[in-house]
Amino acid sequence: MFTQKITPRFGETDALGHITNTAFPCWFEQARNPIFKIFNPDLDFNKLNLILVHMEFDFLAETFLKDEVEIRTYIDKIGNTSFTISHEAWQNDIKKATGKVVIVYLNSETKKPLSIPDKYKTKLKEHFKKD
Amino acid sequence: MFTQKITPRFGETDALGHITNTAFPCWFEQARNPIFKIFNPDLDFNKLNLILVHMEFDFLAETFLKDEVEIRTYIDKIGNTSFTISHEAWQNDIKKATGKVVIVYLNSETKKPLSIPDKYKTKLKEHFKKD
Amino acid sequence: MFTQKITPRFGETDALGHITNTAFPCWFEQARNPIFKIFNPDLDFNKLNLILVHMEFDFLAETFLKDEVEIRTYIDKIGNTSFTISHEAWQNDIKKATGKVVIVYLNSETKKPLSIPDKYKTKLKEHFKKD
Amino acid sequence: MFTQKITPRFGETDALGHITNTAFPCWFEQARNPIFKIFNPDLDFNKLNLILVHMEFDFLAETFLKDEVEIRTYIDKIGNTSFTISHEAWQNDIKKATGKVVIVYLNSETKKPLSIPDKYKTKLKEHFKKD
Repeated sequence: MFTQKITPRFGETDALGHITNTAFPCWFEQARNPIFKIFNPDLDFNKLNLILVHMEFDFLAETFLKDEVEIRTYIDKIGNTSFTISHEAWQNDIKKATGKVVIVYLNSETKKPLSIPDKYKTKLKEHFKKD
Repeated sequence: MFTQKITPRFGETDALGHITNTAFPCWFEQARNPIFKIFNPDLDFNKLNLILVHMEFDFLAETFLKDEVEIRTYIDKIGNTSFTISHEAWQNDIKKATGKVVIVYLNSETKKPLSIPDKYKTKLKEHFKKD
Repeated sequence: MFTQKITPRFGETDALGHITNTAFPCWFEQARNPIFKIFNPDLDFNKLNLILVHMEFDFLAETFLKDEVEIRTYIDKIGNTSFTISHEAWQNDIKKATGKVVIVYLNSETKKPLSIPDKYKTKLKEHFKKD
Repeated sequence: MFTQKITPRFGETDALGHITNTAFPCWFEQARNPIFKIFNPDLDFNKLNLILVHMEFDFLAETFLKDEVEIRTYIDKIGNTSFTISHEAWQNDIKKATGKVVIVYLNSETKKPLSIPDKYKTKLKEHFKKD
């Protein structure tokens, strides 16, 4: 599991008085920074070898400005050329939202999918969700 | 079908040189304004009767800053208390991304789901995707 | 004058029920696209020759989700290596916010300021505010 | 001084490969949360008694995705009905950007400016910049 603390921003609220849906893709993306660093420790974009092809979100309860949010991030599945990451947003011990993204590993020049090398798979597997 | 033209913003690009994933939830949300107005013509938040419970996105090709994007929005399915909206982002006649959201109709005070009144269903049905 | 119509997005509202301050920098940036195209018609980032060094905003009245906003953009001042752009956000014939940004023209490789060529100055001058 | 650590988000980069200008208003706003809590500990929007009327930003150097940013926030000036806050964004011991905002204290019902009560002035003064 990776954890990322989020201090909600006033501009991330909406007219209903709670955190707006469109903030969650940004929060979950921030929580993936350590996963990108597994593949690309210097975050050198010229060698970028990962692309996000799918993302989804389920909203379970309202999230508020006032209190810190913790994003818990797991590796869900590892395929040959892609892997799935799951996210949970917790606030005051309540799971407020969940999400999943699918990332493809590719050759940064040809943009063709590549088999994920074992050294990366091993590191990803350390972050499977434990029951 | 509803259509919404989007002029991409420079801040919506990312370090890979194309439009960043997190812009699409905002674009698709903008494209849903006319659907919210079906239920709530004055966009009066004190009477808000719709809540988004799920959203998902598939990225098919890179989207660029330079050219206008057209968001095409359809009603996908209408259930008893919820309905599904689908979105497509087109740029230069290429479908760059798609998405779906699920919206629940509820009592704005009790926050309980309600059956969608027929008058709204009729208006939504005008926007089913035609083959 | 350049004009850009903005359809406010729900996620651009905040918990006070109107458009949040942080949306305006994004709106004004979108309104500058035609100015960037004067210098760089293809928006080719490898040849980017402009950099924003200052921006400021004054909020005069609340802006609402419901109605379209028009951003009016003028060239304010042209110096040797920099120029100033001013923006106004209008909604329902009321000036809601204003802003200014200072842009420096530079050599895209050395990142040193350069004198703005006369051909660009001429085009910029067409967009001075008329009394 | 208030300090707020920021983990830059990939979506906050732009096509030039560094953090985009429009991220800074959001970062500085997040850094003001403790100031809002001085006036409104529960962040209850129905009693909101502060409004931002001006904001400005100066960009001194490029900010990168890779490393954490620290926002340092000071109270600059306290007037009768308004006060000025200044912000600095530091990354790797380099000051990358600065900003200022002007906040007006008002009656949350009439929206008229009010004299700032001494109890708040005292708390604000603890955060003046020391030489």
